[in-house]
Amino acid sequence: MVIPGSTRLIAIDWGTSSARAYALTDHGEIISEMSAPLGVQRVTAGDFAGALAALCGGQVPAGVPLIASGMIGSRQGWVEAPYRECPAGFDAIAAGLTPVPGTALAIVPGLICRDANGVPDVMRGEETQIFGALPNGSTETQALILPGTHSKWAIASSGAIESFATFMTGELYSLLREHSILGRLATGGTDASALGQGVRSSLREGAALTHDLFSARTLALTGALASEGVADYLSGLLLGAEIAAARGWLARQTPAAVPVTLIGEPALCSRYRDALAVAGIAATIGPVDAAARGLWRIANHAGIVKR
Amino acid sequence: MVIPGSTRLIAIDWGTSSARAYALTDHGEIISEMSAPLGVQRVTAGDFAGALAALCGGQVPAGVPLIASGMIGSRQGWVEAPYRECPAGFDAIAAGLTPVPGTALAIVPGLICRDANGVPDVMRGEETQIFGALPNGSTETQALILPGTHSKWAIASSGAIESFATFMTGELYSLLREHSILGRLATGGTDASALGQGVRSSLREGAALTHDLFSARTLALTGALASEGVADYLSGLLLGAEIAAARGWLARQTPAAVPVTLIGEPALCSRYRDALAVAGIAATIGPVDAAARGLWRIANHAGIVKR
Repeated sequence: MVIPGSTRLIAIDWGTSSARAYALTDHGEIISEMSAPLGVQRVTAGDFAGALAALCGGQVPAGVPLIASGMIGSRQGWVEAPYRECPAGFDAIAAGLTPVPGTALAIVPGLICRDANGVPDVMRGEETQIFGALPNGSTETQALILPGTHSKWAIASSGAIESFATFMTGELYSLLREHSILGRLATGGTDASALGQGVRSSLREGAALTHDLFSARTLALTGALASEGVADYLSGLLLGAEIAAARGWLARQTPAAVPVTLIGEPALCSRYRDALAVAGIAATIGPVDAAARGLWRIANHAGIVKR
Repeated sequence: MVIPGSTRLIAIDWGTSSARAYALTDHGEIISEMSAPLGVQRVTAGDFAGALAALCGGQVPAGVPLIASGMIGSRQGWVEAPYRECPAGFDAIAAGLTPVPGTALAIVPGLICRDANGVPDVMRGEETQIFGALPNGSTETQALILPGTHSKWAIASSGAIESFATFMTGELYSLLREHSILGRLATGGTDASALGQGVRSSLREGAALTHDLFSARTLALTGALASEGVADYLSGLLLGAEIAAARGWLARQTPAAVPVTLIGEPALCSRYRDALAVAGIAATIGPVDAAARGLWRIANHAGIVKR
């Protein structure tokens, strides 16, 4: 990445498999960015300093503050940034920023919350995207959905993340697609109608995922589902199961209807928007640069943007 | 397998990965048996005749009828024995016996049933175990559970299988254990209390499997679940999800409480019995040789046992 002279902050969305670095002005404008397969699991021999230099284009510039969020702050990362308890707003996140000794890098803490039975849930990186996606100065209660390997549904209110829940939709889809007998029935191709069929099936009264998944096999076996539709049908069943469970979770958090925003990769957000529509939930798609915006806002709040 | 002179039927439980052959007297007594890794997926170049000879100890004896059930009758097997519609009793099964040309072998058909929405479910092999486990002459409505890779719950009445439902519990457990981030958290060891904890979690109001599975990670991360307990906790979550869904299915099939029998591998049946007890369902464990008994009964009913 080229670091222009007007750079006042280097912000890094540093995940498990990849990392994306941004050079930002003092107004939070992105003036340069790069992505590299330098996620926490791919940094060899713990050489995070080397990975950071590579993300900066070869050398970490002197005098520019850096901030990162994601798995880089996990136990498997560079320096552990302990989870902050929900509800957590900018103050809590800023107070939890964890410096990496010998560098100008601060790591954003992840969040932890507990359900009514005391069972914890965690996020790392998504909190930053949520802080980047929240409308400026908004105090309205809203729901945010971050689809992915481990999808997150969160409730935010008055600039704080109140609570959230994880759904392993993406990981289960990969497991079924790559390693199960169901995945072997699937050929390439997409089929929007099979996706919708799966979503509707999981939204029905009496739906039961571990039973319904088997119908991908029986419908294919009896010729009712083409092999080109098997993958999307499976995806629809999992997505429908997520929506069915998450809307119940949402209703327990906030009985009144709230605006719903999707944050993440555009194609995936659009797939979720279509599936949510089947369930009668209208969702808007948030900004694509939510991570960079969130990192800048947190850094700004913490007073570490170079002035 | 040694084929004693008093053998009147050779019965084979012929599945995907392994096959078990029994020599039976005219009273259905097992006088010899052998098991071999000669399941349908392991028979090379379609040499089922060679596999059959091997299961008979080298040569198929002349003049002795043979019967087999399981994946050997599937499209990937030797000769396809088309599914029979439920309800199906001995008459329907006997009428569906499919001869293998050039041999004295008959293959038991699998069963197909449809739910209220017309979605099919299928079994192959389990119908034979159920026919072997049903008490002689019983007309009482009862539930039978066959735990496994794809667990089956069935309703039988007056000697016929009325309806059934599949749950992919075993396959999902293997996928999670071997390929997921959750499996990587698990170390060897068993933990009955973690198993019960998982079962109870999935039986609670508001349980949602794709969310709850993630708690194996968060509970381990926060030290609330030892790594030795992770595998059993996952198993408990899946088992509880099966029981929660299946008891709903059962109640829709037959509102009154019915006796519940577990059929299958003893250790697995005992694990299911404990989990069912958590849900307040008392179950007894059926005969271990249900497949051989079922094959003998079907052959006897069809009049193919040598007299």
